[in-house]
Amino acid sequence: MPEKIIPRSQDYSRWYTDVVQQTELADYAPVRGCMVIRPYGYALWENIQQALDQRIKQTGAVNAYFPLFIPQSYIQREAEHVKGFSPELAVVTHGGGKELEEPLIVRPTSETIINAMFAKWVQSYRDLPLMINQWCNVVRWEMRTRLFLRTTEFLWQEGHTAHTTAEEAQEEMLRMLEVYHDFAENEAAVPVLPGRKSEKEKFAGAVASYSIEAMMGDKRALQAATSHNLGQNFARPFGIQYLDQNNELQYVWQTSWGLTTRFIGAIVMVHGDDQGLILPPRLAPIQVVVVPIWRGEEQRQQVMAAVERVRQTLGDRLRLEVDGREEYTPGWKFNHWEMKGVPLRVEIGPRDVEQGQVMLARRDRPGRKGKTSVPMDELAPRVPALLEDIQANLLARARDFLERNTAQPTSYEQFKAIVADGFAQAWWCGDGNCEAQIQEETQATARCIPLDQPEGSGPCIHCGQPAKEVAIFARAY
Amino acid sequence: MPEKIIPRSQDYSRWYTDVVQQTELADYAPVRGCMVIRPYGYALWENIQQALDQRIKQTGAVNAYFPLFIPQSYIQREAEHVKGFSPELAVVTHGGGKELEEPLIVRPTSETIINAMFAKWVQSYRDLPLMINQWCNVVRWEMRTRLFLRTTEFLWQEGHTAHTTAEEAQEEMLRMLEVYHDFAENEAAVPVLPGRKSEKEKFAGAVASYSIEAMMGDKRALQAATSHNLGQNFARPFGIQYLDQNNELQYVWQTSWGLTTRFIGAIVMVHGDDQGLILPPRLAPIQVVVVPIWRGEEQRQQVMAAVERVRQTLGDRLRLEVDGREEYTPGWKFNHWEMKGVPLRVEIGPRDVEQGQVMLARRDRPGRKGKTSVPMDELAPRVPALLEDIQANLLARARDFLERNTAQPTSYEQFKAIVADGFAQAWWCGDGNCEAQIQEETQATARCIPLDQPEGSGPCIHCGQPAKEVAIFARAY
Repeated sequence: MPEKIIPRSQDYSRWYTDVVQQTELADYAPVRGCMVIRPYGYALWENIQQALDQRIKQTGAVNAYFPLFIPQSYIQREAEHVKGFSPELAVVTHGGGKELEEPLIVRPTSETIINAMFAKWVQSYRDLPLMINQWCNVVRWEMRTRLFLRTTEFLWQEGHTAHTTAEEAQEEMLRMLEVYHDFAENEAAVPVLPGRKSEKEKFAGAVASYSIEAMMGDKRALQAATSHNLGQNFARPFGIQYLDQNNELQYVWQTSWGLTTRFIGAIVMVHGDDQGLILPPRLAPIQVVVVPIWRGEEQRQQVMAAVERVRQTLGDRLRLEVDGREEYTPGWKFNHWEMKGVPLRVEIGPRDVEQGQVMLARRDRPGRKGKTSVPMDELAPRVPALLEDIQANLLARARDFLERNTAQPTSYEQFKAIVADGFAQAWWCGDGNCEAQIQEETQATARCIPLDQPEGSGPCIHCGQPAKEVAIFARAY
Repeated sequence: MPEKIIPRSQDYSRWYTDVVQQTELADYAPVRGCMVIRPYGYALWENIQQALDQRIKQTGAVNAYFPLFIPQSYIQREAEHVKGFSPELAVVTHGGGKELEEPLIVRPTSETIINAMFAKWVQSYRDLPLMINQWCNVVRWEMRTRLFLRTTEFLWQEGHTAHTTAEEAQEEMLRMLEVYHDFAENEAAVPVLPGRKSEKEKFAGAVASYSIEAMMGDKRALQAATSHNLGQNFARPFGIQYLDQNNELQYVWQTSWGLTTRFIGAIVMVHGDDQGLILPPRLAPIQVVVVPIWRGEEQRQQVMAAVERVRQTLGDRLRLEVDGREEYTPGWKFNHWEMKGVPLRVEIGPRDVEQGQVMLARRDRPGRKGKTSVPMDELAPRVPALLEDIQANLLARARDFLERNTAQPTSYEQFKAIVADGFAQAWWCGDGNCEAQIQEETQATARCIPLDQPEGSGPCIHCGQPAKEVAIFARAY
């Protein structure tokens, strides 16, 4: 097993790919731009799914499944939508040995096919709100791909809702943004900034798009989830109408929202270090790894009996693994499980057995600082408490990193220096030309216009015109 | 809501489609041969997934995700495989606005892409066994499609394993067949016959295929899951080799196994009746529905207070729904939830409140026979016990139906009469020509050669040649 990860400071981009591949989260597939999500990565995705699915269901949405293929004519019904997605489509032209009369698009997102069904299902105001979520794969033909961050095929959940009023749709859109916000911070320990996307960055076909933006370890931004207010942009071309309480035909108001396997990339980049992954305990496939240390048969028996006690004490309540392999040394195992990002290691040697204790080593505090010895009979309360502390610490230090690397420039010169190595929070006029020029000059884009706005107003950081909102600018993934 | 289901006896095929559509399990999609799995159907699939996923993980297999697209050259590497699947492929020829150099196949099954990765991951005997499962969508271009039973796109899990010996692969194949057997009978209450497929019916590329076969309500057979012994048929073309303990290169031995959304069709057809669905309690999205009965505000308050007590008593432990809608009558609701197949209904009216009791109505025993009144304070133990009884009763009566409609013919004339309306268990020589002639003459095919074989031998039911095994013959979905 060639475990070599280049230091983050030396080459952040290669560090990322090394970590993803060496820890066996994912691998490149022999298909252009596609990845294989390996068991360790998929177990992380399953934990993400579980935590998010529960939250989605609590809002009243239900899961369903819609076809992978979308007739080409459907994609073309909403003008902005087709313009935005056309360059990225994969097209099925042959099926069952014959050329198809109408080519089928492999879904890049499912607004069109889902709304075609909504038009059939929605008849009366009693059928509303209609709130449906789908976990599935989607395909977008990407030019430059990177494991998890940008792949031709990826996994996600996409929610699609229909409401009787514009206000209700806006509320739903914000509710889901808050669900993502809560999930990101409380499950993944990834602090995020929720806000509105600029006109240029919004979803093709949306009235307004919102996102949560996170800061990676190299101080670049990553859009970690999106929630869109679609207005009646799809309701009209797809004819989603209902009879209201006055028996009049009305178009519905809609939202859509999604979070993808890209989020795994965010977890890697927000928490990881030169040793490899650091996984937040709530989502880690393995929360605790137990490494026995012994020499000779007598010690082995004593130590393994203690290991068994630990497994019995914690194994039912935590995702715990015992590494009892005899072909590797304890030192090798320490490195291995550190690289894999397991939040907590339990070491048990002959002296620990004698003293009725074990050694706990935190992944988030390397070396001596992160080690404590704990009496065997205190494990049941101490280990879960320690995992909670690790979870809280990861969030706190990521938030501190985000805050330390976000600044408010008062001049465009300052702005340029800030976005070269962090987030700039600046008054912005909202004009698309301004945005394009900023990007050309600094490579930074408007990440979002945060929901949380300061009082007052100020001059646009680029053009100096009066601005009513601040935006976050940064170079982004 | 137009709730009309044609009686089973009148038109079984339309009855099936009516039930699936009227109960909102699934709907036809506006894409040829594809379906939409609606929330009620998807909730059933989620329960199937959960029950099966747990069993799969208990065998030591882990989940992962492989690409949707397979390079055409991969599909072509195993001769039988490409022959079997070629007529059913959907082909992506264009991506990102350009024609692809090599067309991509939308996976009909993933042996080829997964084994290409196995070749990379497997180096030493220490990497074996490798046992991986994937939950995903697959596409097979079908000519005649029916909701759940045969659709161009369907959902499934596909397991793929690699082992050091032929014996170990055979054991794994049988272990998974037993997992499906256990799942079908103990979760879905669908009795099945596990056995080996004939040469003609085996998976394209397998050394031997096994399946579980179930009997539908019209006495036709349905293949409910399959488990294949692939031998080294994929290991050789894909070069999956490992160094054994003597440091010699060896090819692995493999299996694959799968269960699809087709299984939902089996649940519908095995248990359903003229009123609609009857769902097995372990998998039912709603296990208990509570219908309040009242007139006027005073009664409403009393009844709804009792309903709330029922919810508090049972709601945490069971999937329970209260139908408090005021626009429908209790009678309408009884019919509605019977149609939806909810195993148990709780009725609460003013007289029940007075007497401190509720009325329970079993879905599996219509009318008075299935009704019992139960004191409020006995609900906590009685309702779960009743659900278990319903589960057991569904399995028992389906098994009885299977047994009553399976016969052992002693002549080919008898055989023909039996397969016209049931399963025939008959000595069979195993010859492909014999099988083809039987199918031509009776429309029945060899469903499987059951694992459970009688002693001795006999003359083949068709050609009279000595036969060592009995096979199940039936007309099949």
